[in-house]
Amino acid sequence: MTKSTVNRVLDLVEKQQEQYVVDLSELLRIPSISADSKYAPDVKRAAGWLVEHLGGMGLSPELIETAGHPLVYAETAPVPGAPVALVYGHYDVQPPDPLDKWTNPPFEPTIRDGRIYARGATDDKGQMLTHVKSVEAWMKSNGSLPLQVKFLIEGEEEVGSEHLESYLREHAEKLACDCVVISDTSQFAPGVPAITYGLRGIAYYEVHLTGPNRDLHSGVFGGGVTNPAIALSKMLAAIIDDEGRIQLPGFYDDVVPLTEREREEFQGLPFDQNAFEQELGINGVTGEAGFSTLERRWARPTFDVCGLTSGYQGEGAKTVLPSQASAKFSFRLVPQQDPKKVTAGLKKLLEPLVPAGITMELVDYHGAPGIVIPLESPYLSAAADAIEVGFGKRPVFMREGGSIPIVNKFAEILDADVLLLGWGQNDDNLHSPNEKFTLADFQRGIRTSAALWDKLAKINQDT
Amino acid sequence: MTKSTVNRVLDLVEKQQEQYVVDLSELLRIPSISADSKYAPDVKRAAGWLVEHLGGMGLSPELIETAGHPLVYAETAPVPGAPVALVYGHYDVQPPDPLDKWTNPPFEPTIRDGRIYARGATDDKGQMLTHVKSVEAWMKSNGSLPLQVKFLIEGEEEVGSEHLESYLREHAEKLACDCVVISDTSQFAPGVPAITYGLRGIAYYEVHLTGPNRDLHSGVFGGGVTNPAIALSKMLAAIIDDEGRIQLPGFYDDVVPLTEREREEFQGLPFDQNAFEQELGINGVTGEAGFSTLERRWARPTFDVCGLTSGYQGEGAKTVLPSQASAKFSFRLVPQQDPKKVTAGLKKLLEPLVPAGITMELVDYHGAPGIVIPLESPYLSAAADAIEVGFGKRPVFMREGGSIPIVNKFAEILDADVLLLGWGQNDDNLHSPNEKFTLADFQRGIRTSAALWDKLAKINQDT
Repeated sequence: MTKSTVNRVLDLVEKQQEQYVVDLSELLRIPSISADSKYAPDVKRAAGWLVEHLGGMGLSPELIETAGHPLVYAETAPVPGAPVALVYGHYDVQPPDPLDKWTNPPFEPTIRDGRIYARGATDDKGQMLTHVKSVEAWMKSNGSLPLQVKFLIEGEEEVGSEHLESYLREHAEKLACDCVVISDTSQFAPGVPAITYGLRGIAYYEVHLTGPNRDLHSGVFGGGVTNPAIALSKMLAAIIDDEGRIQLPGFYDDVVPLTEREREEFQGLPFDQNAFEQELGINGVTGEAGFSTLERRWARPTFDVCGLTSGYQGEGAKTVLPSQASAKFSFRLVPQQDPKKVTAGLKKLLEPLVPAGITMELVDYHGAPGIVIPLESPYLSAAADAIEVGFGKRPVFMREGGSIPIVNKFAEILDADVLLLGWGQNDDNLHSPNEKFTLADFQRGIRTSAALWDKLAKINQDT
Repeated sequence: MTKSTVNRVLDLVEKQQEQYVVDLSELLRIPSISADSKYAPDVKRAAGWLVEHLGGMGLSPELIETAGHPLVYAETAPVPGAPVALVYGHYDVQPPDPLDKWTNPPFEPTIRDGRIYARGATDDKGQMLTHVKSVEAWMKSNGSLPLQVKFLIEGEEEVGSEHLESYLREHAEKLACDCVVISDTSQFAPGVPAITYGLRGIAYYEVHLTGPNRDLHSGVFGGGVTNPAIALSKMLAAIIDDEGRIQLPGFYDDVVPLTEREREEFQGLPFDQNAFEQELGINGVTGEAGFSTLERRWARPTFDVCGLTSGYQGEGAKTVLPSQASAKFSFRLVPQQDPKKVTAGLKKLLEPLVPAGITMELVDYHGAPGIVIPLESPYLSAAADAIEVGFGKRPVFMREGGSIPIVNKFAEILDADVLLLGWGQNDDNLHSPNEKFTLADFQRGIRTSAALWDKLAKINQDT
């Protein structure tokens, strides 16, 4: 692939800018709200729009029906010797409520100050479309791509991707690839493009403690009957020490430590601790001793209580010794922690803490391991080079504290490196009113994607 | 006062049995629900019934209007050299809901198996009336009482006795007495009459911890921001150790220890630990080391969490790092603990435990000291002797784990020993559907009350 070929593609991308915005607007007008069954025809219409669009580019897309909303699949021609990239994205959107908080109606895309406002603008119609458009530009300009690109675009991401995993498992061969490209995250900050190379996993639980068979009068019974809310407080307090270290036996055994390069990358990021605290309205932070805030949020395992329920929660004082107390809590995991081992450690810690007069029920909600693409991955390097082309600057390497369960599935089932290339901004109001996408970021995304196919194609498959 | 005088009174009580039940039924028919303003006329009607009834006995009762429901006051003639007893009771009742759980309508008293079923049957119309009837019997049989008895019957007990305290303070001289007689508690068990000689006090608090200014995503922020629900668990856990000892500085300094006689009295009670646990559906108990269940419930200070609230409490898993966490909790106090000192100790313990990133608000709801009448009190002995006459057996001496705030006020303002003489049973369904009063207990109560005036009168006021 000559440099001039890519440049011709990039020139075309430049010329087509307005058309891309028109196409995006058209897709944004379809209220493909997957959570609300009365929008099912619109969800289907959005899938149909994609099929038509991909067909118009010379591909032979498939509309794949599932028990829920359909998948859209398409692929470019195979290129022997070159890697295969699979683009994953979704055409469904979050419900737009509360409607009265929107400046323009959520499905009437409106451009203000260089940003397009509509539900789905970044999440994920706009970001997903950057890859569709870059492939279109390659096809128009060059007639073919320098590597095979496969598209798998789903319509159930906002409702838990219920039917995606089974499709991946049943069609792993068809979907075989070397890397998965997903643009459904954000840049680190405006003007600071980022590659997210790691996600934390999760292990989520609910514990129910039951004491007496009914709420008791705390005067008549208090002191003589074990109080489940106190037992719960003691158990939760025992899970983490005052240095922020989690006390489950074996919890840190498999934790992959941060490398020097990673710690340096994070330290180099324009993260302002004071601004962070101010924005959250807090006067300081606590956390695992010896780690920075970004390290704690992205690369260290953590424990959080997500909910507490017991006894009387109304106004004023009620003298009750509650029958029950329960807590929802989660551990965020990092590679190579195994959620199953965490559950075992949790039971080992909690079971001896159940006092006489209390029974414990532990609900294991769901678990997903953390994931990290080594910074040395050639696909990560190719993506960084492409971002330099598209954005005019090198990306930072960041991790994400949350989990994207489907990323784990892609990595596990397809055995491929997952490239999380976000073009959006942290304040793009995903899942909130006035969702937006900066048009310059949309264009940079398309340019980066166009360059990415070139950079990936140059990776020597034999090394 | 000769023995035969009392016996004549007791003979009359015996003869009047049926009439007493008729009178009680009449009072029970009045739905004097103090909590519901639409029953205000009925509350007034019940007060009027009492005034008429006391007047018919030859007293000159007063209906005392307050900003709420009226008080009824009456007194017998002063008896120089004899002590003065003040009977406190209430003619108002709890709402009867849920109505569909009643076998007979709550204000249509019905006798089944020797028990009268109606709202207010024991609490407190039936128990209060035993003293009215005993005085009536003395007046009818003897023309006078061997001591002065004052009645103060209120109509706001079930709604917090809002206007009683100011009345006590403003009329302390009029109400002056040596002992206060209250029948608004229970026997220890059927056939085990009891004198309740001690009540625990209370200090009730609510703590609010606030972290970030909104609920955060536990993946994105977890580990980097102090979690208020974890901070709350740690604080609550720090209040009490694993031996059930409360860790507030100075908490035990003023605690009056149980005497040997008290421990023996409690040990002699027919309390079945196994039956207690079985009834509550628990497989054991915990509590302050070195004390029995009754000692823990009646005579030792305790800590109970009454409510916990934080974060997500709905179904399933929500990955939230909550903005707030709060708990309601109380300490039950014994003499001579001072609620104000408890508050000071609590602040001393909790304030250093507030971590960076959390602000604490501590709400001090209400406090009342505990109260104990020394077992050596001559009034207590007189009451025990009277119970022997009325029930045919000596009473046990028990304490009560709860607080009766008004008892403290009587003790404090009138500087009198308070005799809590309960004729009811623990299963009389106070505040529940199918409230009842065993007619034999009603009769024993009247007999005991009649004997009480005799026994109290014999106390030498000079010793």
